Amino acid sequence: MTQAMNVAIVGATGAVGVEILSCLENRNFPLKSLKLLASARSAGKQVSFRGKMLTVEELTENSFEGVDLALFSAGGDISRQFAPIAAAAGCVVVDNSSAFRQDPDVPLVVPEINPEAALNHPRNIIANPNCTTIITLMALYPLHLKFVLKTIIASSYQAVSGSGQHGITELENQVRAIADGHPFTPSVYPCQIAFNVIPQIDSFTDTGYTKEELKMLNESRKILSLPDLKVTCTCVRVPVYRSHSISAIAQFERPVSVEEARKAYDGMPGIAIKDDPATSTWPTPLDTTCQDTCLVGRIRKDLAIDNALNLWAVGDQVLKGAALNAVQIAELLVKHD
Amino acid sequence: MTQAMNVAIVGATGAVGVEILSCLENRNFPLKSLKLLASARSAGKQVSFRGKMLTVEELTENSFEGVDLALFSAGGDISRQFAPIAAAAGCVVVDNSSAFRQDPDVPLVVPEINPEAALNHPRNIIANPNCTTIITLMALYPLHLKFVLKTIIASSYQAVSGSGQHGITELENQVRAIADGHPFTPSVYPCQIAFNVIPQIDSFTDTGYTKEELKMLNESRKILSLPDLKVTCTCVRVPVYRSHSISAIAQFERPVSVEEARKAYDGMPGIAIKDDPATSTWPTPLDTTCQDTCLVGRIRKDLAIDNALNLWAVGDQVLKGAALNAVQIAELLVKHD
Repeated sequence: MTQAMNVAIVGATGAVGVEILSCLENRNFPLKSLKLLASARSAGKQVSFRGKMLTVEELTENSFEGVDLALFSAGGDISRQFAPIAAAAGCVVVDNSSAFRQDPDVPLVVPEINPEAALNHPRNIIANPNCTTIITLMALYPLHLKFVLKTIIASSYQAVSGSGQHGITELENQVRAIADGHPFTPSVYPCQIAFNVIPQIDSFTDTGYTKEELKMLNESRKILSLPDLKVTCTCVRVPVYRSHSISAIAQFERPVSVEEARKAYDGMPGIAIKDDPATSTWPTPLDTTCQDTCLVGRIRKDLAIDNALNLWAVGDQVLKGAALNAVQIAELLVKHD
Repeated sequence: MTQAMNVAIVGATGAVGVEILSCLENRNFPLKSLKLLASARSAGKQVSFRGKMLTVEELTENSFEGVDLALFSAGGDISRQFAPIAAAAGCVVVDNSSAFRQDPDVPLVVPEINPEAALNHPRNIIANPNCTTIITLMALYPLHLKFVLKTIIASSYQAVSGSGQHGITELENQVRAIADGHPFTPSVYPCQIAFNVIPQIDSFTDTGYTKEELKMLNESRKILSLPDLKVTCTCVRVPVYRSHSISAIAQFERPVSVEEARKAYDGMPGIAIKDDPATSTWPTPLDTTCQDTCLVGRIRKDLAIDNALNLWAVGDQVLKGAALNAVQIAELLVKHD
């Protein structure tokens, strides 16, 4: 028998929190109780779940008593402050922020790739990886199993909902202002995002790469247990509401063929091929919007890199890139008698 | 003394033709006469040039008598049909289509890179390269001079005006329909481009690459006289009105340094650096819209490829990617006494 759990969502009213709630509901997660936690500003809000209204409570140090599992999605600062408190109270934390991802005692988990890692969590914290990294690895993991990954070269096309509801509102407002001929001042992004693209996501490190770009390097290595994997990346924001796309080249240890590559996706969970040049068939962000399954297309032999495939990966970064992946991790923790 | 020329523009009312006219005017091109040619549908239209009204004439086989130079921008079919007729009439053709670019007797010219090639045109035809290729090479050529190019790995972010006025109208109409909640049917692109990205530009070849992607390979080799240059590319349409962006990795024969790379742009015409991570300074498509100069930023050592730089190039594909480059080629042909 499945043992139902006492679950809390931290950041329950945020863009990802709302989707976590929806994933728990849609996937029929075995809940004994569900506590919705957020900042004082959101406390008291009513949220519908499985036909009942739940009241959002203010997150405090005492929020985690009797909670078995807490899904955190309220930013790195909240995670750094409250995840250890929750963990000390005996609660297992699945954290969507980047705060603990590189901690050697915190597993970093994509359930389709390294589910076993979730079961060893000495700090009682499990980290949910970066959204662009998850989607890229969902597309590359079936190929890795067959050919063994050596190098990833990626350029991303990332949706504004990666910045939360503020990103969506900023794009909507700018599009409307431009249509009406009204002036506007960018606030979420450093410059106009409507009808523009921005080659910076997250802040710069002194390597010349942004934190977002280095996440792709460091998190891919950890998730795949490939400490020598080479990864290079340029992360770009595009005026798309939802779903990230990645133009990726993957170089492998073993000889590749496109035919074998296509077969590698047979029966793999969470990823599907949408790829037929003859009929202009390839995935776009709209194809994966609000969908659990990531899509891969444009699979072809790379023209410049030896033993490499060039491809195009797309996934809903709010779902598989965040909320869904977190709930899938939680599912790995459910005990069965 | 400069010898003024009798010039014709073929496709004078198209998106690029209009900009060619404007470049001739702004750059004070030495004109003895200017003939505007277009399809019968556009014949009779009045166009202002240097304060006078010119009447668009219908393109016929007899249009090129007494014309020294014809700038073609009316698509491959018109070029294939009429460029040889113009050339036979003694007129030098600068052709913006892809029709003759790989002809060994037709030079393919970016004036900042291989101006000398323009002076040897045995078929009386000179080809203007693909827009994305021009912008990428404008960013890489100063580095090539210093380090010697070996491999280009690129992913593009291409504006809808690359499809002409139809592309602009399609994006505008879709944005409006979505705002109004009206249904719409894509016509220029195979699926919605508003708030979406499309990983196909031009038609597919049986290599799995599109023609646009192979242009980057074949044209880069020809322009740079590097027959063994490796080039791999994914071309993607983004909902931007004007200016193409390219996320590129360039691998070189000689050892690279970021400092030396930055110095390579000193005094180079047509290209400038906009690059300061400390102040979130990098170029976006809006920065180059209606500007002659291409911009490069995000210059950093590549993390995965040996002896390579990773960078971000942006340029107005209607100007430097088409009209301006064509007029610059024409300027190379002006004789001085």
